[in-house]
Amino acid sequence: MQKGRLEAFSDGVLAIVITIMVLEIKVPHGHELADLKPLIPVVLSYILSFIYLGIYWNNHHHMMHTVKRVSGPILWANLHLLFWLSLVPFVTGWMGENNFAPMTMALYGGILLMAAIAYFILQNLIIQEHGTEGILAKAVGSDFKGKLSPILYILGIASCWINSWISALFYILVALMWLIPDKRIERTLEEEESIN
Amino acid sequence: MQKGRLEAFSDGVLAIVITIMVLEIKVPHGHELADLKPLIPVVLSYILSFIYLGIYWNNHHHMMHTVKRVSGPILWANLHLLFWLSLVPFVTGWMGENNFAPMTMALYGGILLMAAIAYFILQNLIIQEHGTEGILAKAVGSDFKGKLSPILYILGIASCWINSWISALFYILVALMWLIPDKRIERTLEEEESIN
Amino acid sequence: MQKGRLEAFSDGVLAIVITIMVLEIKVPHGHELADLKPLIPVVLSYILSFIYLGIYWNNHHHMMHTVKRVSGPILWANLHLLFWLSLVPFVTGWMGENNFAPMTMALYGGILLMAAIAYFILQNLIIQEHGTEGILAKAVGSDFKGKLSPILYILGIASCWINSWISALFYILVALMWLIPDKRIERTLEEEESIN
Amino acid sequence: MQKGRLEAFSDGVLAIVITIMVLEIKVPHGHELADLKPLIPVVLSYILSFIYLGIYWNNHHHMMHTVKRVSGPILWANLHLLFWLSLVPFVTGWMGENNFAPMTMALYGGILLMAAIAYFILQNLIIQEHGTEGILAKAVGSDFKGKLSPILYILGIASCWINSWISALFYILVALMWLIPDKRIERTLEEEESIN
Repeated sequence: MQKGRLEAFSDGVLAIVITIMVLEIKVPHGHELADLKPLIPVVLSYILSFIYLGIYWNNHHHMMHTVKRVSGPILWANLHLLFWLSLVPFVTGWMGENNFAPMTMALYGGILLMAAIAYFILQNLIIQEHGTEGILAKAVGSDFKGKLSPILYILGIASCWINSWISALFYILVALMWLIPDKRIERTLEEEESIN
Repeated sequence: MQKGRLEAFSDGVLAIVITIMVLEIKVPHGHELADLKPLIPVVLSYILSFIYLGIYWNNHHHMMHTVKRVSGPILWANLHLLFWLSLVPFVTGWMGENNFAPMTMALYGGILLMAAIAYFILQNLIIQEHGTEGILAKAVGSDFKGKLSPILYILGIASCWINSWISALFYILVALMWLIPDKRIERTLEEEESIN
Repeated sequence: MQKGRLEAFSDGVLAIVITIMVLEIKVPHGHELADLKPLIPVVLSYILSFIYLGIYWNNHHHMMHTVKRVSGPILWANLHLLFWLSLVPFVTGWMGENNFAPMTMALYGGILLMAAIAYFILQNLIIQEHGTEGILAKAVGSDFKGKLSPILYILGIASCWINSWISALFYILVALMWLIPDKRIERTLEEEESIN
Repeated sequence: MQKGRLEAFSDGVLAIVITIMVLEIKVPHGHELADLKPLIPVVLSYILSFIYLGIYWNNHHHMMHTVKRVSGPILWANLHLLFWLSLVPFVTGWMGENNFAPMTMALYGGILLMAAIAYFILQNLIIQEHGTEGILAKAVGSDFKGKLSPILYILGIASCWINSWISALFYILVALMWLIPDKRIERTLEEEESIN
């Protein structure tokens, strides 16, 4: 039950974060197709952030599935993750309204990097509390994707001063890499169940 | 439980989408009845979108009732549907603030069309995973309403350049058609239960 | 479970409606105590609406407790109630920003009246579906408060052109009358349980 | 179940309050690093309030764990707490946008003080209804932290006219003091379970 309320709260925050992002797409004053043109970068940023938040919700969901007891540190590590994700609408808006200017791209990557680190901390806390024989420990394994993501974010941040599109490519690459739901946990869960 | 969290998240997003739409009804500066007059198209668009989102919540609710296992593709098809629905407040605001100008009507219909397609994809994925003998497959049957809606949306989009009200009529027609809750699923569920 | 999702969705909408109302309390530009003065009517309206929405949530909670099966009409009657409640932030903002001008007071009362009617419809639908021997039917009884409220709202609307404060008194009176949680349902529920 | 809906509603309100606070971090017009500089106090206030709301959610969660029956007074005491917490985004925004001006610091402390009092009332009502032998009564004990907090808030409010940073220190001190989750309830719960 403790876990239920943590999940409900996280779902609530993620649902609101994902939805208030749409408030950044301000209704234009004109009523012609041309009036929508300045919104294109805003909508593109919205799509990218929507996918990122979807991935986080999805993986959070799978990870929490393996948690048996919510301790104080897990609770705060979760809030820490939600903190960084709550800043996504701000950086999405800044990036979109400034047509992917270098500095806005760098901050966007920076927030994603911090969220990835927060996720990593949360994941490790859960593994630690449930032991290396726990479902999550087995499922995560060497955590290739989790270790590659921060590197790609840093490359994205570094390259935004060369060209915004190279930077965007790195961010899209990470999203694509994670878009596939975390089969590892699903598979490990199924194996566990078939053994018992 | 997996399903519970998907439903909770979808409910959260839909509840927020339906409620932030009201933020588009901006408080007028004057305090006379006449000051409310420019808000009439905004309120009318709000009512139409409120009904549409109510229908989606309602049918989503019935459809999810038949789901036994949430797979990765179902999860993403659901997020895809929520993406299009999350754009409803934007198009509602644009349409309302521009007094149902043709282009705003077309975009409104376009977003509804995309949401309908997303719903169709989600529905087919669920049917596919649960087999043609599943409850949803039986309940949906030939899916007359599901196939007619996109056609009506396209007619609505096409006719907005002739007259905004013809276009509005098509959108209202689709809403009325769906306003009746999906008895098919309810009935099929009851039949299933009475057999077992 | 059907009922659970209806409750969750209603809770979501009410929680958002109650919270976005606070967005109408705009952060003032100055940083002195005097800069807060123009906000007094806005905060007073916020308090009144907060109490009203609290009452609705509270009574909705008690009423839903007695529901056994959610039918299509109940679902739509519930959405109809949520529609009128979703307009509360708008009328609260309008009333507060215009220092309780007569017309804004009238519209505030009008929305409360519509919400009361929507609540009445929902209540009657539930009673109808569960029979006059159902818990809600017994608990509501002659529904004195439910019948008095619309009259007081109408008096409030009518009197706002004489004096805004008389009108406000009527609205506060209704709130006070309902502030006491619906003991009738609680008592009837307990009686039912003690019999079984 | 009654309790479940109270928790769900509180979670919803807290999740929304925590998330709409981010709307106060307005997207700047420029796209240089320097354009973010005026946002520093806004972000700092956001972090402090995020931690405070996290603490409230956390402790609310633990406290509700010990509740067996939700009575009318508990329900309203809970709404009273949510009322003061719903004003946190407003005072956070005012404080941040005015670079921690004395009066804004005082109001921030005032709202925190009122929330602390509301929490105290709620806690006492729960203890009263469940008896001094209840889990919460044992866990809270002499309630040292609960009694110290209001004093620190008052000191914070008083000192803001001397120096904003002294005031800020008091507020940060209270947050740090509470950041440690309420082990007392956790421990008492475990003891209770080990006895049974």
